[in-house]
Order: sequence, then C-alpha cells, then structure tokens
Amino acid sequence: MTSHQNESVRTARAGLSRVIEPGDTLGCTTVAVLGPEEAWALLSGSSPSTPSQQQRVAEAAELIGLAPKQRSLAAGLERWRTRTAKADGARDLRSIRRLGGDFLIPEDPAWPEQLNDLHPAAPLGLWFRSGTAQDHEPPLDRIRRRLPQAHRSIAVVGSREMTDYGGRIAHELAHTLAGHGVSIISGGAYGVDAAAHRGALRAEPPNGQAPAPTIAVLAGGADRCYPSGNEQLLRSIADTGILLSELPPGSSPTRHRFLHRNRIIAALAGATVIVEARTRSGALSTAHHALSIDRPVGAFPGPIHSAASAGVHRLLQETPAQLVTDPADVVSLLTAGPDHAAAAPTLQPTLPLAAHDPLDHLSEADRRIYDALPKRQLTTPGKLAEVAGLPIPHILGGLSRLQSKNLARASGGQWGRPA
Amino acid sequence: MTSHQNESVRTARAGLSRVIEPGDTLGCTTVAVLGPEEAWALLSGSSPSTPSQQQRVAEAAELIGLAPKQRSLAAGLERWRTRTAKADGARDLRSIRRLGGDFLIPEDPAWPEQLNDLHPAAPLGLWFRSGTAQDHEPPLDRIRRRLPQAHRSIAVVGSREMTDYGGRIAHELAHTLAGHGVSIISGGAYGVDAAAHRGALRAEPPNGQAPAPTIAVLAGGADRCYPSGNEQLLRSIADTGILLSELPPGSSPTRHRFLHRNRIIAALAGATVIVEARTRSGALSTAHHALSIDRPVGAFPGPIHSAASAGVHRLLQETPAQLVTDPADVVSLLTAGPDHAAAAPTLQPTLPLAAHDPLDHLSEADRRIYDALPKRQLTTPGKLAEVAGLPIPHILGGLSRLQSKNLARASGGQWGRPA
Repeated sequence: MTSHQNESVRTARAGLSRVIEPGDTLGCTTVAVLGPEEAWALLSGSSPSTPSQQQRVAEAAELIGLAPKQRSLAAGLERWRTRTAKADGARDLRSIRRLGGDFLIPEDPAWPEQLNDLHPAAPLGLWFRSGTAQDHEPPLDRIRRRLPQAHRSIAVVGSREMTDYGGRIAHELAHTLAGHGVSIISGGAYGVDAAAHRGALRAEPPNGQAPAPTIAVLAGGADRCYPSGNEQLLRSIADTGILLSELPPGSSPTRHRFLHRNRIIAALAGATVIVEARTRSGALSTAHHALSIDRPVGAFPGPIHSAASAGVHRLLQETPAQLVTDPADVVSLLTAGPDHAAAAPTLQPTLPLAAHDPLDHLSEADRRIYDALPKRQLTTPGKLAEVAGLPIPHILGGLSRLQSKNLARASGGQWGRPA
Repeated sequence: MTSHQNESVRTARAGLSRVIEPGDTLGCTTVAVLGPEEAWALLSGSSPSTPSQQQRVAEAAELIGLAPKQRSLAAGLERWRTRTAKADGARDLRSIRRLGGDFLIPEDPAWPEQLNDLHPAAPLGLWFRSGTAQDHEPPLDRIRRRLPQAHRSIAVVGSREMTDYGGRIAHELAHTLAGHGVSIISGGAYGVDAAAHRGALRAEPPNGQAPAPTIAVLAGGADRCYPSGNEQLLRSIADTGILLSELPPGSSPTRHRFLHRNRIIAALAGATVIVEARTRSGALSTAHHALSIDRPVGAFPGPIHSAASAGVHRLLQETPAQLVTDPADVVSLLTAGPDHAAAAPTLQPTLPLAAHDPLDHLSEADRRIYDALPKRQLTTPGKLAEVAGLPIPHILGGLSRLQSKNLARASGGQWGRPA
C-alpha cells in the first residue's frame, strides 16, 4: 500500500461520502477548503465551525458561483449532521474490502484525473469492486491497472426500454470496441446499458489478450446489485471489470442519485455515445453532462417513427452531438481532442466502402459520349456527335479513351456499349 | 399573350435549348452576352463569329472563371453546329403546345427568379406541360398561377431503390405539406420521387381548396413520360401540377442530363429534403447543388444497418444538412432564410410533445425528499431527514409542498408516496 494515501484520509473521505450527497457543491467545497480530515472532524463533531472556517468556505463558495444563501457552512453543517450519527467510514471500508473492493480517493495515484473536470462537484471518492476472491493483488492496485485512460474509453448509454435495434447496436459496438482495447463505461441498467456491458464482456481481442475491462457506474452502493435482474451481469463486471459508485456500501439508488451518477459516466469516458433514447431518457442527461465538460458526444440515429430514437434525434438537432453509424465513427470521437489523437486506437470502418464506378473518372465530354452510345445497337460517330453535342474530332478521341477503359466497343466503323 | 415575351425571342431560345447542352457554361454565357436572337442567328448560320462577338464572349467567360481554353466562341460554335441542322424552335413550340404546354423563358414575368441563383449555368428556358385538354387558359398564364414561390416549395428527393420506410416518409411528408399549401418538387423517378409526388397529389387541404401543385423536373423532354412505369403518375402531375424540363420535346434522359436536372430541382425549391439515399444516390447530388447555392437541406435519418439510409447519414456527418424527423422540421427549413420567415406556412409538429412530468418542477431539495419517501410504507420526518440528508425543518416544508402537488401523503404523522 506504499503507493496509496494513508488510511486516515481514506477513512475521513469514506465518512464524508456517507454524509454529503452527490452534487452537494457546498459539501465538496468544504472538503476542498478544509481538507478531508478537518472537514470530517467538523461534520462528525458537535462543536460549531470557527469564524475562520466559515469565512474560507464562504469565499471559496462565492468563487465557484454559489448564491449567497448557499455559501453558509453553518447551514451546511445543520444539513450534514442529520446523517453523521450513522456514518462510520472505517466500518464501510471493512465492508467493501470483504467484497474484494476498496475506496479510491483523489489523493491516490490511481485516481482518474479526468474526473477533476467535474469540479466543483467532483466525487469525494469512488467505492468499487474489482476482481474475484481468488485474486491476491490489493484492490487499489488492481483498479489502477483496470481503469482506462480517458482516450481509451467510451461511455455507451441509452434507454432502459430499448428495441431490438438498439440492443443490437449497443452489443455490437461494445463488442468491437472492447476487442480493440477500448473500455466500455455504462450504468449497469436494463436495456442499452446491459447490452453494452454484455457486448464488452464477450469481446475477444485477436491477440488472445483479455478484452478491455468494462465499468459500471452505479447510482447505489457498489455492494448492491441493482437492478436485481442484472445481478449476474453485475457480478461478471465486478469479476473482470469494475463496479463503481460514489455512494458508500448499502446506499439506495434514488432518482436524484441516478442523475448525479450520470455526470461520473460522462466525465470518466473520453466520449459518450447514445444508443436509443426516448425524449425523456436519463441517457440524455449523460449526454448533456458530457457536452457541458467538452467531451465529444455521438448519437446513433434510428427510424423516425421509433419513440426509442426520438430523444436521440432531438439531441442531434439541438446540440453539437455528432451522428455516428459504426465503431469507426465512435472511435473518431476520441481523436477529436487535440491531446489524444495519437494515442487513440484505430479501427477500420465496418461499413464496406462504396464500390468503385469507372464512370466517375470520365471527363464531362467523355461521359456525354458514353451516355450517347446505344446500349444494344451500334451507331456512327456522326450520329454520336449530334446526340452528344460535340464535334466529330472530340467524338473520335473520346471513343478511343472509352474503348481503352472497356466502356465502348467498335464494329465495322460503328460504336456501341460493351456487351 | 400581352404579358409574355414576343414569339421571336421564345423561338430563338427554343432552338438554342436544342443545341446547347445543360451545364454548357460557355453556351449560357454566349446567349447572355449576345442575347438569344443574335446568338441563335450565329449558331444556326454558317458565317463565322465576328471579332467583336468573340471578344465580348471571351471577356464574360473570363469573368465567370472559365479556363482560357473554354472561353473560345469559335470552339463553341464548332461544337454547337453539329446539332443546329436538326434544331427547329418553331416546330418544337408547336409540338409542346399540342400537349397543353409551352416554353417559359427568362424574359417572361412568370419566370421563377430563384433559378437565377444558378448563374452562369441557369437553364435557357423551361419546357413544360400543365393542365388538361379541357383547359382554355393559355399555358403560360396557367404556369404563372401554378409555379410556387420558393418559400412555399420543398424538393423531396431520394433513392430509386427505396424501402417501405422511405416510401412511407416521402408519401406522408408530401401529403402533409401539399395539404398546407407547400408545393412538392421532385424528379418523377421511381422510388422516393414517385412516393412524394403521389402523396402530394392525394393531399386534401382542410378548406376544400386544391392541394399545392406538385412539380416534376424531368431529365428528358417534358413530352416523354420517363420512366415508362410512372407514365400514369406523370400524366396526373401534368394535369394538376407541372412537368418541367430544360430539354426540348423528344430529348432522351441521359446520365449527364440527370445530374444537371438535379440543379434545377435544388434551385427551384426553397429547401431540399433527402429521404433515403444510398452512398452513391443521385439524390445526394441534388443536396450538394442546394448547399452550393445556400439553400437549406434536410435529411431523414434511418436505421444504421439500412443501405438505403447510408448516404443520408454521410450527408448529415459531412455537410451542413440538418436532421429532420417530421413535416414541422421540414417547414422550419423554409424559415431559415431571413426573407421568408414571415411568409412560410406554419405547421404543428406531428410528434406529440413529451408528457409533462410533475417532478421536473421540483427544487433539488424537494426532489430528494420525494426520492426518500417510501413507496408502500410510511416513515417519520426524522428518518426522511437522515435518508435525504436534509435538516428536519426543510423536510417538513418540503413534505407540505409535495403534498399540495399530490406527490406525498400523510397518515398519523408519518409520510409516504401517494397510493
């Protein structure tokens, strides 16, 4: 554990993560200003905050644009202390460690730097499960190995109520990308999320290596397999990938937490791709989070009569989200940023390129001659000159070029198309 | 005929339209510089061009950017004179008039001004059929009535090999728009073109008036019903709408002429919409023509696995074409230009707006309280304070607001979600 932060900071952040709700900007600011240990001592103790603490927090809160009413450390303490009695960071750490997990914190070298783009509402830490009971590697080392660089990861999200069309896209996309070393990040939910995770888990890289780990970011505790119908899937993700949550073990996934969870998916991935979304789908919130922190967003179009694609189409109409149709389009999102172009994986487009048409490379005049050539009979150069509207010398030169490309045939001084 | 240009200019342009192939920029420039009558006298006579004529044409050709080799009036004459022997404008005018048509020329007040955006390759005139044998109104008056303003017309084009999906979109779109007074312009071809024309022909405006006339711009003569499988459709369009061509009666539709025909569709319409297009579809050339003269372009997305939508998706990825999903989106293309916003028709979106969700208007705190409320049992405000992470006074205020919105229910001092 030499490469990781000491236990007291981790325990303080663990306690804070039970008390401060995701998206509580004043709480995040308080931790940033006072440091996790001082913040935890204040929240868990009964003594009031000092004027100095209040002033430092208020100044930082003003700097990040909080309204005056929301800058009060005293009001925050009143809110947070409703929960501190039941908060016990050490107990929660023991609990997650029994499951082969741990609590990754910003002070750890393995912390994904891209999450700092969520400032001032970055998570206080990430509770995770990764690996099986047979693994002896410390979980914090294992997650360091498994967490992808942003430019090697794609968030694939979409509707719970997906159609076969959306399921096929999500599965095939994740399968292809994970097989090329791109981690698939999603929310572990029914529908598109599950299809994407499954596709990633089943990927088989050509060189026999393991596929890129898939990551499920949960809205409840990482110890809870929610939704229960995905329990087997989530266990598989925990085994070979990562289950992540900013909420401590045992936490319930609430609507509020789902929406804030989406910001972590968006920030963790190098780009976000939407596969089917109704006009009110939560996947759209992930897309908007991604756009708000300048992450590229891709969206798969679908039939206009499909309600499952209506939200995607609106996203494409109203935001800078880009239309994507295959894995190559999606990977090209990763190269949109200036820093990552060289490091992003390369993929061949899965759609075959359009067939070569020999007529494309003809000059305008030669194409007119070709058009004038009869398909079944033969005709004279004089007649061709009239039909094509070109002088006879041009006709003769053009016929010779067309013949060399096997686009015209001659017989007894007359001309036609090849048989 | 007092409102129309005299017959000699019309006859001269008729002869020129037989000799100068669509897209022959030197030909168009020659007519523009010398005037139609002098140009026709030169092309149909045997005397060489004068040095003054040569110089004026060369200067104009240089101004519009033609390469030096392409500025030579003498070379043009050599090309054009291969056809003048068989050109007879007066005969062609008699021929089209027998079919209830005529030849509309730029000197006519009914000439669609928007075609001037095609300069320097605007058509020399438009051969047309419009109306039935029972009509006694002169065809040039009738077309003046039937030709739409650009801001009341939409080009609907797409693949010949359409799917049921594309056919349904084209038909429903045209049906809706024509019923709202928007003329549908297309190419009279199989597939999307035919579906759009048919939808327009079957439209029934709510006030019992005739639907907006539909216009087919043909690549061959307006007297020829090409393709033959659409003969009945094209006859119907001639009866109540307009069949148009820049080629004189009897002309064959060639590949070259199809491509140039597309520029007329694009220029005549206020906006162009693509419904299904393979990656090599001619409909894409119409879209590119429209974009090149700053006409808005819309494109209907489709399933990513459908080859019939692959060209549309590429268009959306690579050009400023806008994704559209319903008639209202398409009409909004017409209002994109600064001049026409007020004059364009208004349409209600056909997709129902998303249902109103009462949770959308809750404050963040009230939503957290709502999330914390148990679904089936009841709980105390103290427990809610812990779960939601909010002080008790906030909980009590929030519960009262939720109750007033029928989002919470109370019983014996305990709280839960409404049954």
